Amino acid sequence: MSLIVQKYGGSSVADAEGLKRVAKRIVETRKAGHEVVVVVSAMGDTTDELLDLAEQVVPVPSGRELDMLLTAGERISMALLAMAIKSLGVEARSYTGSQAGMITDAQHGSARIVDVTPKRVRDALDSGYVAIVAGFQGFNRGTGDITTLGRGGSDTTAVALAAALGAEVCEIYTDVDGIFTADPRVVPAAKKIDVITSEEMLELAASGAKVLYIRAVEYARRHGVTLRVRSSFNNNEGTLVTNPKDGEIVEEPIITGVAADLSEAKITVVGVPDIPGKAAQIFTIVAKTNANIDMIVQNVSSASGLTDISFTLPKSDAATVITALTAEQPDVGFDSLQHDDQIGKLAVVGAGMRTNAGVTAKLFTALFDAGINIEMISTSEIRISVVTRADTVNEAMRVVHSAFGLDGDTEAVVHGGTGR
Amino acid sequence: MSLIVQKYGGSSVADAEGLKRVAKRIVETRKAGHEVVVVVSAMGDTTDELLDLAEQVVPVPSGRELDMLLTAGERISMALLAMAIKSLGVEARSYTGSQAGMITDAQHGSARIVDVTPKRVRDALDSGYVAIVAGFQGFNRGTGDITTLGRGGSDTTAVALAAALGAEVCEIYTDVDGIFTADPRVVPAAKKIDVITSEEMLELAASGAKVLYIRAVEYARRHGVTLRVRSSFNNNEGTLVTNPKDGEIVEEPIITGVAADLSEAKITVVGVPDIPGKAAQIFTIVAKTNANIDMIVQNVSSASGLTDISFTLPKSDAATVITALTAEQPDVGFDSLQHDDQIGKLAVVGAGMRTNAGVTAKLFTALFDAGINIEMISTSEIRISVVTRADTVNEAMRVVHSAFGLDGDTEAVVHGGTGR
Repeated sequence: MSLIVQKYGGSSVADAEGLKRVAKRIVETRKAGHEVVVVVSAMGDTTDELLDLAEQVVPVPSGRELDMLLTAGERISMALLAMAIKSLGVEARSYTGSQAGMITDAQHGSARIVDVTPKRVRDALDSGYVAIVAGFQGFNRGTGDITTLGRGGSDTTAVALAAALGAEVCEIYTDVDGIFTADPRVVPAAKKIDVITSEEMLELAASGAKVLYIRAVEYARRHGVTLRVRSSFNNNEGTLVTNPKDGEIVEEPIITGVAADLSEAKITVVGVPDIPGKAAQIFTIVAKTNANIDMIVQNVSSASGLTDISFTLPKSDAATVITALTAEQPDVGFDSLQHDDQIGKLAVVGAGMRTNAGVTAKLFTALFDAGINIEMISTSEIRISVVTRADTVNEAMRVVHSAFGLDGDTEAVVHGGTGR
Repeated sequence: MSLIVQKYGGSSVADAEGLKRVAKRIVETRKAGHEVVVVVSAMGDTTDELLDLAEQVVPVPSGRELDMLLTAGERISMALLAMAIKSLGVEARSYTGSQAGMITDAQHGSARIVDVTPKRVRDALDSGYVAIVAGFQGFNRGTGDITTLGRGGSDTTAVALAAALGAEVCEIYTDVDGIFTADPRVVPAAKKIDVITSEEMLELAASGAKVLYIRAVEYARRHGVTLRVRSSFNNNEGTLVTNPKDGEIVEEPIITGVAADLSEAKITVVGVPDIPGKAAQIFTIVAKTNANIDMIVQNVSSASGLTDISFTLPKSDAATVITALTAEQPDVGFDSLQHDDQIGKLAVVGAGMRTNAGVTAKLFTALFDAGINIEMISTSEIRISVVTRADTVNEAMRVVHSAFGLDGDTEAVVHGGTGR
């Protein structure tokens, strides 16, 4: 009897009908002879409604009490889901994050899992029950307090449970058919990917693909959990995210997918003295703000002995970083700061890049032919990212998708999406 | 520094405005130098909304998962209340029933408190925090599961915490000004009672007065907790519910209040052989159904050697009891069963009855003068209950209220009411 972890997002359990549909699928999996652990998010808009309520009470709710509030969301969906499963003749028990042994650090709102002790879940399975676990939430041993894992937290809960319980597969149910070669809302010719390595998935998730959250993919990769991303609205196979072992031969397409990200801004430090240690000094200042730096480009030094350093970071971090750098301007000795929040980032991902020359050339040619200007470039072993103007990034995604032969014959079906 | 437990019902925290108003009152109490523990119910209609959701999923939700679901309600209100208090500059921490040490038996939906171990609440107070505790909910040690205490459970939570923490007073905030000599919606001349003994309060609550729940009053009486029932919408003193010690001289009014109850039905077992053991046999059958019998009247035996036995019980228990008695009819040997759900029960309560003759006579005269027929009578040391036709019970309450000189000069102000 194999153990399957299934995670259902808020859009899959948006109302009573959705809960019953999901319950039916769980019961089918159980009756097929599998042990089933289900991780469920809050129903539909519950989280936003709770946040609205909190904002009516205090302008900026945060910390311990916000976590206490938001975890009511999964408590509702998991109890209802357990009832729905029971009404189909299969015993089910729901467990909060703390009951399921999701032990985290004490960072409210974005806690990290430090241990998973799913004894009660294991006992429930041994009794023949389906175990329903609240996604997104955990428990800190030091304070005894309830925590939440932040955006995409339910994916992480599912992967962590799959790892701790030695599940055969962790199925992430969502409202799209799987991982696509590009966002089907932007690139209608995008195709569903049947198999992708976790390494590629990680690069895609980090580059703006939103179906899976990067922390969950990281966790799955580190613990060797096999993921399957599929729709809760049909029986399609979805996308398998595998962890090929070193030396294992995997047939790798050159390019697996294309992703775009409009959430970043670019800061340019203009007129930095081109002497050793200046870049280090600048990024030490930036690091102290906890901003998440992505791409860095240092221009060739001019005759004046000055250079420019550009970097990208989440738009929400830009103001803090500008304040910090301005405070240290006399000490660093740069001329000025430029802030640009109209950039778009395009990433091309594929494990086959490692062994295929010419990918960069083909990418640049496709963009040049479409008249799209490249402002920054960054590469990893299996990814090339370029920064363009924000208003050209969708067109860039389409031409690159086509240039690498990813276009499918049929248009993808697109639903709305939520994320928790 | 004295410790005050304050309980706020759902109508007091129905929306963000209500939460802020309540938070302000709590902060004032804290700033007056008291330690404050707050017990809060779910906001407004939350519980009913969650029940509706559950009924959309399964026709008759029950047990463990229903408790898991409903406890989300207090989780929401307590977290929001803690935020609201913090925004007024006073530190507050919210605790679930299990975090606050409300240990219960495993009876889902109507669990009984078996132990209270409020270590985290005590620690929070010692740190100078206001402690917010979820009403209505507890935790069973054997199963590790969340339980709920049933109707009026939040009152019980507050009283149990007050007892365990040695609180000076347990304030029950509601949407009326306190305990009245009769339901002001029925008797406009009803007066607010300033002081009442817990013994009298118990009789009033058992007789249909709905402001305080009987289990909470019982608990308060057993543990010597002083209660104050008051409105969260004004600063009136409300009603103090005291526990005078044996021998303590209390100035007792003859009659403290009048209550009516329309929730009971009457079953008459007709033609019971008037031989020893028959009544015992009948009530053994009834006891097995777990029905809650209230009043019992056995008629004088007729010449035929047969007698009738009548008893009252909650309307909701009547069908079960009739089924059980009918099944045993050949064995018991009665003629037939009569079921009457059009009865009303009127109770007159007052500790002064003990030492005052003539109360019964005055009651009967008042009802006779009003042309109201008495069908059953039951008395305790400090209460007289009579059963009348349901449609005369309100008029009976008014004439009795007036006959015992309880009528006030001004009409009471009445709000709506909820109960959890």
